[in-house]
Amino acid sequence: MAEDARHFAGELEELVARLLYMGSLAEERVTSAMRALTERDPARIEDVISGDRALNGLHIDIDDRCFKLLALQQPVAVDLRVVVASAKINGDLERIGDLAVNIGEAARRYIVHRPVKPLIDIPRMAGIAQEMLRDALDAFVERRVDLARQVMERDELLDSLKDQIFRELLTYMIAAARTVEPALDLILISRHLERIGDHATNIAENVVFVVEGVDVRHHAGD
Amino acid sequence: MAEDARHFAGELEELVARLLYMGSLAEERVTSAMRALTERDPARIEDVISGDRALNGLHIDIDDRCFKLLALQQPVAVDLRVVVASAKINGDLERIGDLAVNIGEAARRYIVHRPVKPLIDIPRMAGIAQEMLRDALDAFVERRVDLARQVMERDELLDSLKDQIFRELLTYMIAAARTVEPALDLILISRHLERIGDHATNIAENVVFVVEGVDVRHHAGD
Repeated sequence: MAEDARHFAGELEELVARLLYMGSLAEERVTSAMRALTERDPARIEDVISGDRALNGLHIDIDDRCFKLLALQQPVAVDLRVVVASAKINGDLERIGDLAVNIGEAARRYIVHRPVKPLIDIPRMAGIAQEMLRDALDAFVERRVDLARQVMERDELLDSLKDQIFRELLTYMIAAARTVEPALDLILISRHLERIGDHATNIAENVVFVVEGVDVRHHAGD
Repeated sequence: MAEDARHFAGELEELVARLLYMGSLAEERVTSAMRALTERDPARIEDVISGDRALNGLHIDIDDRCFKLLALQQPVAVDLRVVVASAKINGDLERIGDLAVNIGEAARRYIVHRPVKPLIDIPRMAGIAQEMLRDALDAFVERRVDLARQVMERDELLDSLKDQIFRELLTYMIAAARTVEPALDLILISRHLERIGDHATNIAENVVFVVEGVDVRHHAGD
C-alpha cells in the first residue's frame, strides 16, 4: 500500500509538471504571436499558425494521464480535486494555444496593410493576460487562493481595455475606409486576448476549488 | 453490492438527463438570441443577455454531480468515460450559453442601426450549429459514433460560411461608413455561431471517446 501511495504521488507530480510545461508553452505561443504582430514578421506569423502540434500533443497526453489516474488509482479528497482541476486547466491551456493561432491568423491579414495606429493598448492587454496566466499557474502549484483571487480581479481590467480599443478603432474605421480591414483585425485580436484572460480566470477558479473544495464560478458563492 | 450498483446506475441516468435538459436550454437560448436579432426585438434581446442564470446553475450542479460520482462511486471503464465526458460536455454547453449572451450583446448594438442587408447566411449558420448541437447530444445518449462523425464533418461548412460572410461584410464596410458598426457586429455574431459549432464538435468527439475509448481530438487517430 505504501508502494501504491508513492506511485500515485509520483504520477500526480508528473501530471502537474507536464501541466506547468504546457502552461509555459502556451504563454510562449502568445508571446510569439504578439511579437509577430508588433514586428510585422511574416515568418514568425507562419510559425505561430502552424506550430500548434506540441501543445495539442500535450493536451492529449495530459487528458490521458488524468483519465488513467481516475481509472486506476481512484483518488479521493484533495488528490481527486487536483486531477479533476488538472483536466480542466488542460482544456484552458489548449484553448489559449488555439487563441495564439487566431492572433497569428489576424496578424497575417493585418500586416498586409499600413498600420492603423501605434500598437499600445493591445500589447498592454497581452501583458496583462500573460501575467494572469502565469499567476494562475503559480497559484495552482503553490495552492495560493490569495493569488488566484488576484487573477480573477484583473479580468475586469482586460474587459474594459477591450471595450476601449473597440470604440477607438471604430472611429478609425468610420473615418477612413482604408483602415476598415486592419482595424477589424485589431478588434479581433483584442477579443482573443480577452479570452486568454478568461481562461486564466478559469484556471484561478480551479485553484480555489482544489484548495477549498468550493465552486466559485458564476459567483456561486455570492 | 447490487443495491450500490442500482444506486450508481440511477445517479448516472440522472446526470445524463440533466445534461440533456441543459442541452435543450442552451439550444433554446441560441434560438432566442437569433430570433431577437432577426426580429430586432429589444425586449427579447435583454432577456437573452440577462437570462444566463438557469444554465449557470445547471453547470455547477452537473459538475458537482460528476465530482461526487467520481469521489463516492469510483466508476470504471465505460461508466467512468461517461462521467468524464459529461463533465466536458457540461463545459461546452455552458460556453454555448455564454455565446448566446454574446450574440445578444452584438444584437443590442446592431438593431440601433439600419440593417446592412437581409440576414440569410447568418440564420443559416445558426441552423447548422443548432442541428450539430442536437445531433451531438443525440449521439451521446444513443452512443452513436456514426452520428457523432457526421457532426464533426459539418464543422467545415460552418467555417467556410463564416469566411464568406466576413468577406461580404468587409466590402460593405469599405463601401459605406454607415455600415461599419452594424457589419462589424454581424461579423462577430458569425464568429460566435462558428464557435457554437466548435462546441458541438467537442461534444461529438466525446461520444467517440465514450463508445470507443479513443481520443479523436486534433486528429489524434490520423
